[in-house]
Amino acid sequence: MSDVITSTKIENRFTVGMVLYPGMTFLDLVGPQTVLGIFGETLLLWKSLEPVATETGNTINPTTTFDNCPDELDVLFVPGGYGTNAAMQDEAIINFLSETGRSARYITSVCSGSVLLGMAGLLDGYKAATHWACYGALEASGAIPVRERVVVDRNRISGGGVTAGIDFGLKLLAELRDENTAKTAQLVVEYDPKPAFSAGTPSLAGPEIFDSAMKILGDMDAQMIATLQSRTI
Amino acid sequence: MSDVITSTKIENRFTVGMVLYPGMTFLDLVGPQTVLGIFGETLLLWKSLEPVATETGNTINPTTTFDNCPDELDVLFVPGGYGTNAAMQDEAIINFLSETGRSARYITSVCSGSVLLGMAGLLDGYKAATHWACYGALEASGAIPVRERVVVDRNRISGGGVTAGIDFGLKLLAELRDENTAKTAQLVVEYDPKPAFSAGTPSLAGPEIFDSAMKILGDMDAQMIATLQSRTI
Repeated sequence: MSDVITSTKIENRFTVGMVLYPGMTFLDLVGPQTVLGIFGETLLLWKSLEPVATETGNTINPTTTFDNCPDELDVLFVPGGYGTNAAMQDEAIINFLSETGRSARYITSVCSGSVLLGMAGLLDGYKAATHWACYGALEASGAIPVRERVVVDRNRISGGGVTAGIDFGLKLLAELRDENTAKTAQLVVEYDPKPAFSAGTPSLAGPEIFDSAMKILGDMDAQMIATLQSRTI
Repeated sequence: MSDVITSTKIENRFTVGMVLYPGMTFLDLVGPQTVLGIFGETLLLWKSLEPVATETGNTINPTTTFDNCPDELDVLFVPGGYGTNAAMQDEAIINFLSETGRSARYITSVCSGSVLLGMAGLLDGYKAATHWACYGALEASGAIPVRERVVVDRNRISGGGVTAGIDFGLKLLAELRDENTAKTAQLVVEYDPKPAFSAGTPSLAGPEIFDSAMKILGDMDAQMIATLQSRTI
């Protein structure tokens, strides 16, 4: 396709391994994929090549199985979502993360994906971010919680909730390449955000909106904390 | 899946028909899908149920064929991307858009998707936005170009390039429901953007970054203008 020219004409492409799982938040994955995909190869990793459903039921197709994942990824990436708690209890996912994490140049996440990295033992003693509703689980996972949009600690880079994946992707691009490359990607995706409302954090949103959001988010944090407390290793 | 609970527990759900095509920009689709999918049903529409490739080659699966699309959508949505020019020359897509556009409550787009709507005759005399690099084609399509992040003109709502889909989605949600619903979605997706750099528009980015971005974007605008000039109707 003519559109893939934009990828193939870029030289010295880096490789980003993006782990899929059922119930991931679509935008957690696609924000970084779109930003990083301009300059890098984005592999969508899963146990098989069967479609994987996002939390709203739309399905995406893996490009590469866990077994066929390249040995040394430039970036290992994990999205978040309502399915994170179930993924934390999936031995195949946890084993893949801990093994791949040994050789990946950067170990990264967006949203509750950092709790999944923590479950795999990849954030012990590392500063990390997560979705505002998941900081209890992040701390229980062994990470040092930092309530920032994007947190960089050595080769661990994590973003906050969902839309933070765009800020995360641009920051990671600056680390992988340079600031001008990140700025070029920012211009290509016209990232000049203009939210019509100011409700992107609990303090900005206020108690009424917070309660409505929690009705949707449910008890994700408590469920993930319970999963972490019951882990045997 | 437990994660779909978040969708099924919402009452009076609206239906958003999102048109897929090869070479669409993944984030153009998924920004709005994630925001609107919290409160609405998002149908991914294509000629068949075969996978459709985004511009970086990752594939997504349609949920509904053009033939099986509900008669009266609350929202008809079209993403943009490097594949827009080819989609403008695809009779099946143009016919589907013009037919569905007769009954849809809102006719909407992100990025160069507005040029595709214009090609289908759905923006004649309507104000609309597009990606900063595509305003020539938008004007040639019969729309009234407005260089804003999100443009609302009667029941036409269009967003700027790629990441504008999140601002677009929240604005549309406020139109479909109310401001508090949009704020709730904004909090759920933690939309409190913090770009590390200020390069989201040509004027902010400056000439050097602009040239790098144009090397990636290529002559999309000129190609779409040529397609519009050669249309027979």
